[in-house]
Amino acid sequence: MKTIESTKNERVKAWKKLHTRKGREQADSFLIEGDHLVDEALAASVAIEAMITTRTDYETPFSGSVYYVTQAVMDELSMTETAPGIIAVCQKKVWKQPTSLTGTYVLLDSVQDPGNVGTIIRTALALHASGVILGKGTVDVYNDKVIRSTQGALFHMPVYTGDLHQWIETFKKETVPVIGTALTNASPLKRDQTYPSFALLVGNEGEGVQPSLLSQATENVYIPISQRSESLNVGIATGILLFSLQG
Amino acid sequence: MKTIESTKNERVKAWKKLHTRKGREQADSFLIEGDHLVDEALAASVAIEAMITTRTDYETPFSGSVYYVTQAVMDELSMTETAPGIIAVCQKKVWKQPTSLTGTYVLLDSVQDPGNVGTIIRTALALHASGVILGKGTVDVYNDKVIRSTQGALFHMPVYTGDLHQWIETFKKETVPVIGTALTNASPLKRDQTYPSFALLVGNEGEGVQPSLLSQATENVYIPISQRSESLNVGIATGILLFSLQG
Repeated sequence: MKTIESTKNERVKAWKKLHTRKGREQADSFLIEGDHLVDEALAASVAIEAMITTRTDYETPFSGSVYYVTQAVMDELSMTETAPGIIAVCQKKVWKQPTSLTGTYVLLDSVQDPGNVGTIIRTALALHASGVILGKGTVDVYNDKVIRSTQGALFHMPVYTGDLHQWIETFKKETVPVIGTALTNASPLKRDQTYPSFALLVGNEGEGVQPSLLSQATENVYIPISQRSESLNVGIATGILLFSLQG
Repeated sequence: MKTIESTKNERVKAWKKLHTRKGREQADSFLIEGDHLVDEALAASVAIEAMITTRTDYETPFSGSVYYVTQAVMDELSMTETAPGIIAVCQKKVWKQPTSLTGTYVLLDSVQDPGNVGTIIRTALALHASGVILGKGTVDVYNDKVIRSTQGALFHMPVYTGDLHQWIETFKKETVPVIGTALTNASPLKRDQTYPSFALLVGNEGEGVQPSLLSQATENVYIPISQRSESLNVGIATGILLFSLQG
């Protein structure tokens, strides 16, 4: 076990760069915090570059480098108010492009709240989806708040990025219907409206899905809500639609 | 318009007490932040005690006391990282006990995350529920993060507190089924399982609903999720169940 006591240590500085999207893109790695996420990562065979801990008696099945750090170093590396006892440096996973698009996919157009993106990935995993596709303007999946909200689902759910216009065309070519969500020019979600395979397209918290994507969709639906209400949270809407459309 | 320039002003001190549950209970009032919530409160005829703003040119249909404050005072009163231009002091609303329990109700047993409670209230309003009942151990509905997550739904959705054992008995006496959520000793949610009226019982993020409440429920259900997944977020589960059980 190696010991790091200074917040000015070069390794600490390098790890801190992973707090930003740019730093994560340059290093192709990211940080996860706390026992639950670390256990999930180990269980999912995520490639871990290093473990960083304040616990002198830390035991782990991980065979790579373990760094013992002071509380001050841990506070510097943590993105949470109360620093955890353990942080792991993980390599980004590149998911293989799916060979077939059967199953359920969720397409996110400019979803900006990290908690929403993380919860949607967690929900997609729970509700048997095959993948989540992040379009332009959607928050980085390796953002610390996204990771925390996924509660480990990130390590099990294939996540892709890319141009949603192109993805929609690909789904349609494979005769998988793309179901957009919109408040106008859309049909109310019907109970018997189910599909063996589909791609669900949801959008930005304030603006919804951009019109050019909606016009490409096979069909656009909305969840009938009370007139007293402005809208559903995008994560809640995604949960309802995934569950309901799967039948 | 009155002006307050000092963070040590007695009124500022009194308003700051509303940051805690105890302070809100003593004063029977609470703070809301930002234009959207204030507009919602005005539209819903919430009893507003005072408006507090940094905007010298603030115009409002509100006819009560408006206080112009410095940025330092606003920073002191705000619970958000970036203080808004406007805060309102509102009186708590006591909702009349419902005369009939037909319709849909949501019962929360020890739901502790403010974002979850707020999102559930917002979802309940959107999905035509008649009320939300907060049991023991559930976070205070006037907590600033709960209020923010309701996005104003708080002003339109009747929210009650009380002993859930008693509430469940009352529902059952009125022959309204109480549908609990549990992972064991429960049936999978079925597509054709719908009720004209029901009370949905959801529980703590980690522990679920306490067994003594589950044993009182008319029936307990679960949402079938992937084996790769640990659980759904309680807000997401509530959304799916409310939508699905209403038919």
